[in-house]
Amino acid sequence: MEKEKKEKSFEVTPYEVKGVLDDAEYERLMKEFGINPINKQLLDRIKKHTKELHFMLNRGVFFAHRDMDWLLNEYEKGNKFFLYTGRAPSGETHIGHLVPWVFTKWLQDKFGCELWFQFPDDEKFMFKQNLSYEEVQKYTYENMLDVIALGFNPKKTHFILDTKHAGLLYPEAIKVAKKITFSTVKAVFGFTNDTNIGSIFYTSMQTVPAFLPSVLAKKNIPCLIPLGVDQDPHFRITRDILPKLGYYKPAIIHSKFLSGLKLYGGKMSTSDSDSTIWTTDTPEQVKKKIMKHAFSGGQSTIEEHRKKGGNPDIDVAYQWLYFFFEPDDKKIKKIHDDYKSGKMLSGELKAYLVEKINAFLKEHQKNRELAKKQIDKFIFKV
Amino acid sequence: MEKEKKEKSFEVTPYEVKGVLDDAEYERLMKEFGINPINKQLLDRIKKHTKELHFMLNRGVFFAHRDMDWLLNEYEKGNKFFLYTGRAPSGETHIGHLVPWVFTKWLQDKFGCELWFQFPDDEKFMFKQNLSYEEVQKYTYENMLDVIALGFNPKKTHFILDTKHAGLLYPEAIKVAKKITFSTVKAVFGFTNDTNIGSIFYTSMQTVPAFLPSVLAKKNIPCLIPLGVDQDPHFRITRDILPKLGYYKPAIIHSKFLSGLKLYGGKMSTSDSDSTIWTTDTPEQVKKKIMKHAFSGGQSTIEEHRKKGGNPDIDVAYQWLYFFFEPDDKKIKKIHDDYKSGKMLSGELKAYLVEKINAFLKEHQKNRELAKKQIDKFIFKV
Repeated sequence: MEKEKKEKSFEVTPYEVKGVLDDAEYERLMKEFGINPINKQLLDRIKKHTKELHFMLNRGVFFAHRDMDWLLNEYEKGNKFFLYTGRAPSGETHIGHLVPWVFTKWLQDKFGCELWFQFPDDEKFMFKQNLSYEEVQKYTYENMLDVIALGFNPKKTHFILDTKHAGLLYPEAIKVAKKITFSTVKAVFGFTNDTNIGSIFYTSMQTVPAFLPSVLAKKNIPCLIPLGVDQDPHFRITRDILPKLGYYKPAIIHSKFLSGLKLYGGKMSTSDSDSTIWTTDTPEQVKKKIMKHAFSGGQSTIEEHRKKGGNPDIDVAYQWLYFFFEPDDKKIKKIHDDYKSGKMLSGELKAYLVEKINAFLKEHQKNRELAKKQIDKFIFKV
Repeated sequence: MEKEKKEKSFEVTPYEVKGVLDDAEYERLMKEFGINPINKQLLDRIKKHTKELHFMLNRGVFFAHRDMDWLLNEYEKGNKFFLYTGRAPSGETHIGHLVPWVFTKWLQDKFGCELWFQFPDDEKFMFKQNLSYEEVQKYTYENMLDVIALGFNPKKTHFILDTKHAGLLYPEAIKVAKKITFSTVKAVFGFTNDTNIGSIFYTSMQTVPAFLPSVLAKKNIPCLIPLGVDQDPHFRITRDILPKLGYYKPAIIHSKFLSGLKLYGGKMSTSDSDSTIWTTDTPEQVKKKIMKHAFSGGQSTIEEHRKKGGNPDIDVAYQWLYFFFEPDDKKIKKIHDDYKSGKMLSGELKAYLVEKINAFLKEHQKNRELAKKQIDKFIFKV
């Protein structure tokens, strides 16, 4: 019974992430999706080019991939790749959204890549019954600020907004769409006869940036897509279709989700503000949410904690530091050990995280303001 | 049995017109589609504004409508309408395609309307497995020449090419698509799980020109769609959705099909060149096809024909004159009577038609050459 229950404890599609994703679940997801773990050999190979490894690689935040070996073969032959990632603008940006973007920036810096960053304002509008077109446009603007604030190279970063760039995307999307049946999207995304026809079509639009640079350059260019693992199904279709159109299958590198505050392993939810840190939160809001809501792996009393120690593996504050806010390996090791031994209290751990988040957000919010004048530099000019 | 067989002798959807459409079938189609016959009262009302009636109205070539009374109410209140029609560029233009366009031009002239003319190059590409993107672009160009050659007012006529104008259409199409489920398009167009997701989405794109002028003008403008009756299902969806988006339901006026040469009542087929007169055919080709293939309502021998007379009702040459090539009511009456009495022979009737077609095509082909320099004036500038 226990086992059976566990087997159903998560569900991951681009339109729903349910349940708790712990290490065992990620293992199973890898098998279910047919994606490969990032192993030592691959890490060494990446390091050969980047000199150092991003902590998200070392710590398994990016944990799986498709065709990274092929991508590096091409790279080593002098066939440079471009990066493609995106953000569906269905709400404000939270800390969890930043995970793959920070890593993407690192890839851009280390490999000198062009980056195509898609904002599928069509997708969320069509998938969310109560989300208006105007709201989506507002979120697109807000989300763009957060991406720019992370410091992407404006000369090498091209924002694609599906409605704004429809003139560019749609003529390519129909070539994709012609090769995908309703049966396929039904199976991959769980669509039904009640799904609207825009949502059914949408995956074609998400496929286009994976070969658009090849169209524009009139030559085949390899593509690497860093993404949250829930988006993998879209690109399974993409990988199936692109060779039929004469393009390379894109390589993919998959990240885990940053937990929501209230539960270790749950994907951060945009609908529960208490469980989420927004990029625009004030230091007071951050402090209040972390202290009050961050799920603790500590013991219920100080005495007990000193004696038994805490469990960093299920402690959301610790996990946030590990995933994002404490890149220093020595420091994170010390926090881990001190917390586990009981030397560090849950309140101290949380206070440390609050400090880290607020330092990050102070800088981010400053950059976010500056970004308002930079948007034009990032939006792709047709 | 006879009756049952008859009930299944035709099938009309935007993607398939099968069987023979005689007057009785058009009657039944009207009932099946829920469209209204154009009656004397409506004709009188139109004539009040146009002074004279186009022969296609008098002769029932345009035979049915939706909401023409509402449209004229609005017109009489000073609320002018625009026209919307189109051509799916899946091949060269034949004579049958010209029927609704000639009438549309008359409407434009008489009512002083703006006309939005859509070339859904996405549609045919996605629906026809073996039609390449490049072929569709070539046909789009050829078809535009034929439309321009008919003499539309370039100041009031706006060509919309779905891929070229996707930047304009797609952001509106997703608002339409959000309100249409797969169940609906399945029921209306007979789609299955094997239908590709582009074809499923497409009707959203065909809906947009019915309200695009309202979007651009930022006010609600009535729309009249002249079309071949097979296209009605698309606009049943359009009429269902537009009020939900705050726009008027478009009015529609429906034409019958010009028969293919080989069979009275069959829709002219682009796949059987012997059955079809192309706008680029030479006088010799026209003569050969008409004399050889036009289905005759005459008798098998001259003697018998003189005695029994011919049947103009099933004679394709007569029907072509009646539908298109002999607008003069007195002349067509005389031809009808002479042919029916046996005074006019089948060969004479065909020769008369050949003369008429060739005179028309001579002028048309001249205009078609001139059109090559006018295309830019017609393509809508965003």
